[in-house]
Amino acid sequence: MPASPLAPAWLSEPSDANALAEGVWPASAHRDETGGAVVGGVSVREVVARFGTPLLVIDEDEVRGRARRTVAAFSAAAAARGTSARVYYAGKAFLSTEIARWVTAEGMRVDVCTQGELEVALAAGVPAEHLGFHGNNKSVAELRRAVETGVGTIVLDSEIELERLSRIAADAGRTQAVLIRVNTGVHAETHHFLATAHEDQKFGFPLAEAARIVERIRRAPGLRFDGLHCHIGSQIFGTDGFRESAARLLEVLSIVGDGGEPAPILNLGGGFGIAYTSADEATPIEQLADGILEVVAAESAARGIPVPVVAFEPGRSIVGTAGVTLYEVGTTKDVTVDTETGPAVRRYVSVDGGMSDNARHALYGADFSARIASRVSEAGTQLVRVVGKHCESGDVVVDAEYLPDDVSPGDLLAVPVTGAYCQPLSSNYNHVPRPPVVAVRDGAARVIVHGETVTDLLARDAGLHPSRGEE
Amino acid sequence: MPASPLAPAWLSEPSDANALAEGVWPASAHRDETGGAVVGGVSVREVVARFGTPLLVIDEDEVRGRARRTVAAFSAAAAARGTSARVYYAGKAFLSTEIARWVTAEGMRVDVCTQGELEVALAAGVPAEHLGFHGNNKSVAELRRAVETGVGTIVLDSEIELERLSRIAADAGRTQAVLIRVNTGVHAETHHFLATAHEDQKFGFPLAEAARIVERIRRAPGLRFDGLHCHIGSQIFGTDGFRESAARLLEVLSIVGDGGEPAPILNLGGGFGIAYTSADEATPIEQLADGILEVVAAESAARGIPVPVVAFEPGRSIVGTAGVTLYEVGTTKDVTVDTETGPAVRRYVSVDGGMSDNARHALYGADFSARIASRVSEAGTQLVRVVGKHCESGDVVVDAEYLPDDVSPGDLLAVPVTGAYCQPLSSNYNHVPRPPVVAVRDGAARVIVHGETVTDLLARDAGLHPSRGEE
Repeated sequence: MPASPLAPAWLSEPSDANALAEGVWPASAHRDETGGAVVGGVSVREVVARFGTPLLVIDEDEVRGRARRTVAAFSAAAAARGTSARVYYAGKAFLSTEIARWVTAEGMRVDVCTQGELEVALAAGVPAEHLGFHGNNKSVAELRRAVETGVGTIVLDSEIELERLSRIAADAGRTQAVLIRVNTGVHAETHHFLATAHEDQKFGFPLAEAARIVERIRRAPGLRFDGLHCHIGSQIFGTDGFRESAARLLEVLSIVGDGGEPAPILNLGGGFGIAYTSADEATPIEQLADGILEVVAAESAARGIPVPVVAFEPGRSIVGTAGVTLYEVGTTKDVTVDTETGPAVRRYVSVDGGMSDNARHALYGADFSARIASRVSEAGTQLVRVVGKHCESGDVVVDAEYLPDDVSPGDLLAVPVTGAYCQPLSSNYNHVPRPPVVAVRDGAARVIVHGETVTDLLARDAGLHPSRGEE
Repeated sequence: MPASPLAPAWLSEPSDANALAEGVWPASAHRDETGGAVVGGVSVREVVARFGTPLLVIDEDEVRGRARRTVAAFSAAAAARGTSARVYYAGKAFLSTEIARWVTAEGMRVDVCTQGELEVALAAGVPAEHLGFHGNNKSVAELRRAVETGVGTIVLDSEIELERLSRIAADAGRTQAVLIRVNTGVHAETHHFLATAHEDQKFGFPLAEAARIVERIRRAPGLRFDGLHCHIGSQIFGTDGFRESAARLLEVLSIVGDGGEPAPILNLGGGFGIAYTSADEATPIEQLADGILEVVAAESAARGIPVPVVAFEPGRSIVGTAGVTLYEVGTTKDVTVDTETGPAVRRYVSVDGGMSDNARHALYGADFSARIASRVSEAGTQLVRVVGKHCESGDVVVDAEYLPDDVSPGDLLAVPVTGAYCQPLSSNYNHVPRPPVVAVRDGAARVIVHGETVTDLLARDAGLHPSRGEE
């Protein structure tokens, strides 16, 4: 069958529209003898029978394995250059106490950026000294709470914050270790990077100001300069952008010297790309770690400074591939669309969730894939668009995918790679309750984030529940 | 002072950067003798002292006045052509029991598109026969609940749904009135419209299929054909798109005849544009109503059919301008950006909310304006970008605005026109609690939607609260 003229260039027609692509699905995913998909040893039909749809399933071993492998890769690459590595889990990707426990048990630290994320990490038992605190506008209350709980590192983002934190830490009789977020001028995305002098964004200090800010910190009561931080982008598949930004930050470190402080930290942020569809191929983390540490060592040597302790902040690459969202198909509809080669059919497959549980296509135009999860089909393929149930034409979950032609109401549809930035960005648009999150491992399933009910949503309505103590 | 080279073409430098622009702010908005903004007779400084920031303030009289004026405009325009008008409030724009009570007290009906929205409307005491139920993927449970509660009209979206609803209504011994959602091929946005034969979207039936679907409904047990429905877009400032789509639907009505049923309804949806900034000018609703009804009457006469009952579904134009979000400024930062005419400064003003309470810029690139609300300033102006506190560079609330040059941490910043599609799309991204919604009227303020606390967010974490009855 020829490819649909409506298919985007990157999407090839699969030889088997039942296949659970390696690197896109959790490593544990397979189909059992009935044809139903199994993740973490749990049949998706069974987990749906128990918890309903929509449902976000997280493969615990996938999260733990990626955390372990990432820590090992950076530790080995650092050790080979005579230094060490700190690997923080970027909590913004998806944080709950369970996830914080898994990643810290595998050797990661945790990055937070609000009091809410801080409280989750603390409640999970993450040692405060293993926490990093980010953000362009941390409130006074957030900074106080971070200082008083002993957060290991606070990443300073502005001069206003520098003064604010100095006062708070000094008042509390503490010395707070800080990094400086620097705009290196390097923007990396997928396979390319762009390097500029000025960055038009809300985060950080310009590169040209960094040395001056280090000196301000060294004079400020209550603060200790611990190093530099940058974050150059998302979904990055190579090392070039990291190498360029590392070189720029090492130049700053060579200028400011060690000031008698412990050897400074070079935190290069996160952004390691993962495969959202079969068209993507993630770079092995060992290759990224080695490529980045190689340049850090070489650029340090060229400047005659010791190789700094390095730090990284992966989030998506730890938890993204571990998540699979399960929906039930509600309706299907063939829509004829005019194309340059004549009319073509796009099948709209409507599921019982949408942009409320996965806003990534609506927000970023992100691509995903989909599979019928409840059965295998011998039917030919049909180009589909998976859409949600919201009253909005932009409510698209999977823009383009080939599915078996017999996809029907009642089928379970699985969208993999929804472990990162789906639950955190979820809303109650159209008063749709947010789904539960269920962890699967060794054949067992358990709720890690409770789902909502319509009753939960109505509890915020003050016309029905006048008193909740705000007034 | 020359305009900033970073300002978009539509943004002019204001003569007074303290002015609360007419049509952008609620009609009640003004500054009191201290310079602080007042909405609904309530000082924003006082409402913030009581409820904190961020805070969504809704001017009740603005909502009621717009509802009343819209109903009056369509009723008068319809009566002048010998027919009547039904005006539904599109609940998706922002629904709570209080808002449902206000708009229905002013003569509106209510549109819902999920069970959640249905329950809010019913809990508010909206008569079920005054409800319309929309959506491309209503579940069996939702359709059952709609039929059993006596929802006035269900808008059919697919043949699968037609069969489903026929079965449900017949089983319940009911006759359910239905409209057919038709893709007229007309897409309207702001001042332009586009007309095509085929529409590449998830909603509705193709125009060419509409007559066949009417016949299917007439043969289906449990259903009664009540008319046609279309929705042609958002933020529409003229009548041309409505006129073209009305003509196309009247052609279908002339073909299918009245079938012995009550005179069919012509529901032309919503989409009436409002002013988000001073650069926009909303078309008076009376002018829209008259222009649309004129063509409905003329096209009906041309086909020799009676002028149908007309229906409309405004949401944004009822509630959008009534909402003002109040933030506290946390940090400001001047960023130098390279432009064609040399380096220019953009000031980033960070507030204590962001894309979690207003996702419209992140989702749609929507423009908003901003004002310092706690005081007036005699300072010159500075081009700013208002950004949130989320760990994401796309976390922009107001992309470009001129504010007084002395805007500082601690200032209250107000962003008007946030009454529609902000609260409904709000999330807990970065574990940020969603703000309360406070109605103001005649100098009094009261909560209509409760805000959340970090404790509320942690209540969904099953690692901390294992049992909530799901299992």
